[in-house]
Amino acid sequence: MAVNLSTPNPADLLPVPGVRLGVAEAGIRKANRRDLTVLELAEGSRVAGVFTKNRFCAAPVQLCKEHLPQGGIRALVINTGVANAGTGESGLAHARQTCAALATELGVAPQQVLPFSTGVILEPLPVDRLVAGLPKAVGALRTDGWFDAAHAIMTTDTLAKAVSAQVQIGGRSVTLTGMSKGAGMIKPNMATMLGYVACDAAVSQPLLDELVKEAADLSFNSITVDGDTSTNDSFILIATGQAGNAEIVDAAGADYKALRDAVVSVAIRLAQAIVRDGEGATKFMTIAVEGGRSREECRQVAYAVAQSPLVKTAFFASDPNLGRILAAVGYAGVDDLDVSALRVWLGNPDESVLVAEHGGRAGSYKEEAGARIMAHAELTVRIDLARGDSAATVWTCDFSYDYVKINADYRS
Amino acid sequence: MAVNLSTPNPADLLPVPGVRLGVAEAGIRKANRRDLTVLELAEGSRVAGVFTKNRFCAAPVQLCKEHLPQGGIRALVINTGVANAGTGESGLAHARQTCAALATELGVAPQQVLPFSTGVILEPLPVDRLVAGLPKAVGALRTDGWFDAAHAIMTTDTLAKAVSAQVQIGGRSVTLTGMSKGAGMIKPNMATMLGYVACDAAVSQPLLDELVKEAADLSFNSITVDGDTSTNDSFILIATGQAGNAEIVDAAGADYKALRDAVVSVAIRLAQAIVRDGEGATKFMTIAVEGGRSREECRQVAYAVAQSPLVKTAFFASDPNLGRILAAVGYAGVDDLDVSALRVWLGNPDESVLVAEHGGRAGSYKEEAGARIMAHAELTVRIDLARGDSAATVWTCDFSYDYVKINADYRS
Repeated sequence: MAVNLSTPNPADLLPVPGVRLGVAEAGIRKANRRDLTVLELAEGSRVAGVFTKNRFCAAPVQLCKEHLPQGGIRALVINTGVANAGTGESGLAHARQTCAALATELGVAPQQVLPFSTGVILEPLPVDRLVAGLPKAVGALRTDGWFDAAHAIMTTDTLAKAVSAQVQIGGRSVTLTGMSKGAGMIKPNMATMLGYVACDAAVSQPLLDELVKEAADLSFNSITVDGDTSTNDSFILIATGQAGNAEIVDAAGADYKALRDAVVSVAIRLAQAIVRDGEGATKFMTIAVEGGRSREECRQVAYAVAQSPLVKTAFFASDPNLGRILAAVGYAGVDDLDVSALRVWLGNPDESVLVAEHGGRAGSYKEEAGARIMAHAELTVRIDLARGDSAATVWTCDFSYDYVKINADYRS
Repeated sequence: MAVNLSTPNPADLLPVPGVRLGVAEAGIRKANRRDLTVLELAEGSRVAGVFTKNRFCAAPVQLCKEHLPQGGIRALVINTGVANAGTGESGLAHARQTCAALATELGVAPQQVLPFSTGVILEPLPVDRLVAGLPKAVGALRTDGWFDAAHAIMTTDTLAKAVSAQVQIGGRSVTLTGMSKGAGMIKPNMATMLGYVACDAAVSQPLLDELVKEAADLSFNSITVDGDTSTNDSFILIATGQAGNAEIVDAAGADYKALRDAVVSVAIRLAQAIVRDGEGATKFMTIAVEGGRSREECRQVAYAVAQSPLVKTAFFASDPNLGRILAAVGYAGVDDLDVSALRVWLGNPDESVLVAEHGGRAGSYKEEAGARIMAHAELTVRIDLARGDSAATVWTCDFSYDYVKINADYRS
């Protein structure tokens, strides 16, 4: 059950000039399931990406890191069902075979293809079935394929996640469309499960490389479902350059700012969609920490609260259990934190109430107010550390019976 | 449902000369429940302790840190129901009032009393009811009070946790008895929920101070239930000096080694008992990491596996989901880890099987073996990092529906 998330309207997903998408049923792990997606990029497209820091990073992630710096990327291929992670040398060979097969199909070089896999770890990739499915995916390529692609990259997701935006840059209308997937093993570290944002802006490669990092940091790297960092996290930003704007080369200029704001906004919506569809989620929680000495310590505190199983189960029960929030703040690792200066608010879209100050419960706080706020599915915990000017926000979901059910059953 | 843990046999809990215990029903949070415990220590007893590093540490923990260095501790007072944490200045006043009242009752000074509280955070301590219950607890003091005390300090625990041991030191028989409590909000940081070990050995204060840290590190600081570090963790080591042995003053001598081994062994059994009785636990898991460059990196890896909700739910399902274990090892933060050298074994008390090597699943591994091993309630994950000589062990339990149920219901 996703929190305030619904299937995107196909008509709301705007084609991005220069990007075509096609999907197929390759029978990777289960029959009769769309599990193979190809993105074809027009010549001249620029691509930037960030990837998981998990040391057991998947074979396709290793290949992406090898191919991406060579430039000239012309296609992406994504399979679900099997993650091709923890598969050693043969996994790497399978990923190379995948790239080579798609390259032949499209008449490009293998290193112009980026491969992505998501699904069960440690299982060998059935590369023959994958390769056999490629012609069908390529035959299905079309500019309005985002809706189907967003569905074909799902695993334990209950809903497809895709959004579009348009922004004026240099007198031209620039279109952005993105999609993401992921519901469990979600605590991205410098990237996410799988996230893709394409736009038709013309932008220099150095600025695109900078933008993908900043956007990842503010979106996918600010969410957690269960604190588990996946082996396959990847976030890819594509700029096809077909919007006709003058190439953006100045990081301080208005054009870059407009593009940056649009990309960050799309990335945040896609990242939040992953949390809203988090395994077993019944609440969507924003943990906003301010007044820190650094963004890093604010993130530390926000993640401690967002990952606490005790906080998450209390929110599942709609129980305003402030003690568990304060305990998590207390063990977040900010060693010289003055708890008597700290203040905490609990809120929903309708109201926000001061709940803790002076090292304890706020005098003005009434349990009824807490109960009233917690009855909402969209909740905010705002924490003022009162020791600096930095801030950070992390999004997470609650911890329900269904999380256990989903993860105790996943492989069966 | 606790994992291979049963109520201690009262006859197995040996009195420690110099220690008397008494309990009472003070009605702290609920009526008709033993919720107040007093330990009286004979004059000349030495006490050492370690406490939570949570910045929201409870008022009684703050007082313990103030009283303990002054020496001459003669009594401990422990209440359940309310943690007296996140209670600001009034909480501290309540803890002082508690010490003063017990001191009057026993004819000692207030700073000779150590207070402990466990229960709900942020609730004011009903100090009047606590103080009113003290005469009854003092009236009940007796040397064979460990069994009752171990029950009276329980909160969400389903079973009392207490063990005894005897060891020969300097030609004298030294008796150790300890008790602990805790089932949730368990990831002690330099201490535990509540753990007490008393012995009658004569040992110098500096050695006792050293021993309490080492024993905590190898026992309570090596367990996790849910990764939440409590506000009230305390581990106290008492030496009454009544065994008649020559005072132990040499850290390199055989006497200290004998005492150290006995204390560590008792502390490990008490710490493991907390995990066996972990909220909703159905499996008891030992995560043993070896071949690390430092004990700290071994602990990092062990805790990453032990705290992964995905690993814990897989173990609940008796699913040998190796991918989740490898993913957790991969994100544990050992940045230069060579995953191709790493090896992982899965075991129970009857057998141990190599499951991963060369960056993937071991060629010899069969799913039947994994399934057979996982059917046991006592499981071991052994991980060889293959990069050094250090090792560390962490104990944890699985993550079940009942964990969610217990923590979604706890305050109601």
